[in-house]
Amino acid sequence: MAARNKLVLLRHGESLWNKENRFTGWTDVDLSEKGVKEAGDAGLVLKKEGYVFDIAYTSYLKRAIRTLWIVMEETDLMWIPVKKSWMLNERHYGALQGLNKAETAKKYGDEQVFIWRRSYDVRPPSLEPDDPRYPGNDPRYGALKKDEIPLTESLKDTCERAVPYWTSNIVPDISSGKKVLVVAHGNSLRALVKHIDGISDDEIPKLNIPTGVPLVYEFDAEMRPVEHYYIRD
Amino acid sequence: MAARNKLVLLRHGESLWNKENRFTGWTDVDLSEKGVKEAGDAGLVLKKEGYVFDIAYTSYLKRAIRTLWIVMEETDLMWIPVKKSWMLNERHYGALQGLNKAETAKKYGDEQVFIWRRSYDVRPPSLEPDDPRYPGNDPRYGALKKDEIPLTESLKDTCERAVPYWTSNIVPDISSGKKVLVVAHGNSLRALVKHIDGISDDEIPKLNIPTGVPLVYEFDAEMRPVEHYYIRD
Repeated sequence: MAARNKLVLLRHGESLWNKENRFTGWTDVDLSEKGVKEAGDAGLVLKKEGYVFDIAYTSYLKRAIRTLWIVMEETDLMWIPVKKSWMLNERHYGALQGLNKAETAKKYGDEQVFIWRRSYDVRPPSLEPDDPRYPGNDPRYGALKKDEIPLTESLKDTCERAVPYWTSNIVPDISSGKKVLVVAHGNSLRALVKHIDGISDDEIPKLNIPTGVPLVYEFDAEMRPVEHYYIRD
Repeated sequence: MAARNKLVLLRHGESLWNKENRFTGWTDVDLSEKGVKEAGDAGLVLKKEGYVFDIAYTSYLKRAIRTLWIVMEETDLMWIPVKKSWMLNERHYGALQGLNKAETAKKYGDEQVFIWRRSYDVRPPSLEPDDPRYPGNDPRYGALKKDEIPLTESLKDTCERAVPYWTSNIVPDISSGKKVLVVAHGNSLRALVKHIDGISDDEIPKLNIPTGVPLVYEFDAEMRPVEHYYIRD
């Protein structure tokens, strides 16, 4: 049997706003203490199972970057190259970013919030470009073209920027035999998994990738997924 | 006056082996508690003085990488791209790596140790390729050509690999207007400073760059150094 190419996906640990039950999106909040612990556990199980990586990918958001750093520490791989991209950021949550989820449900109704959270192509209300939360006001997104900067995103929108990044950057590394780690977010990882496994638009919003549990994909020589599994201690 | 391009050089904080008075070289030891504090102070003064960076460079060694990470945290720049290279590693100290400096002086004599430490082109005793300390046995140096992997280095050898990296990677970034941070080691920074300021072979071993104190270089449009200064709180 030909050697399979392996990929590890990892969703960042709990953030301070997961804990406060607020819509986060592109808001750059750090890990909570529990999130730090989750990242450490992910690193430990990867080390115990003998995983090593040649390169890592992550987003522009510190909850993912810090999770990656902790894994790099635990696996003694601080020296490997890391590529960061906004295209692996969490889904942009528009004008809901920063709002408490329970209060939002009170204001717009449970059903509306459910639709925003669990439909494939419905966008939450847009930001205005003069909103301090507009990514165009943040220097880290200064290199983006104006039509790349989201005012809000559906899961579909997230897929439409994450998948091209996957195809043009991550796939060539995996195909060339590199062992790749991707540390990202609930929705940017949904985007990759939807694309890899051909999951339908209706099914993907229901798929929940747990935080801090490495998800391994094995590919054949033609980059077809052969199997996938979580690794836990 | 045309805007000057700025570069910040930073030597990593105290490592565990600085503390134990052992020759370190390419040995991948972490920062001491004091070193972590020094890195944090460097980050704080950079933040206070309003420094931001578009890109950072560092070595393959965790005492430099961790110093950089701490600075990125303190300046809220965890998202910037980081390029790592073995060519920014500390000078390789050959068969002295891991030995206690006082014991080495007892064995070889103070004068010999002084020559190894403070001459420009004298190499410490070589490693044998079957030595566990030989970098060719470490996967992180697996991409190097055999004649690039040092068995020992003089400061001159360190200059001869660090300066080409400076010229081909760092200079183009500075010239294009990017704000660059380089976090490296006593001798790889000596190599850069020797090249930038045209310091003589005799003088450069005496130049001591303190740990954890950002050293700013300003360049004119032709990349000539105009002035340099340390920033301290």
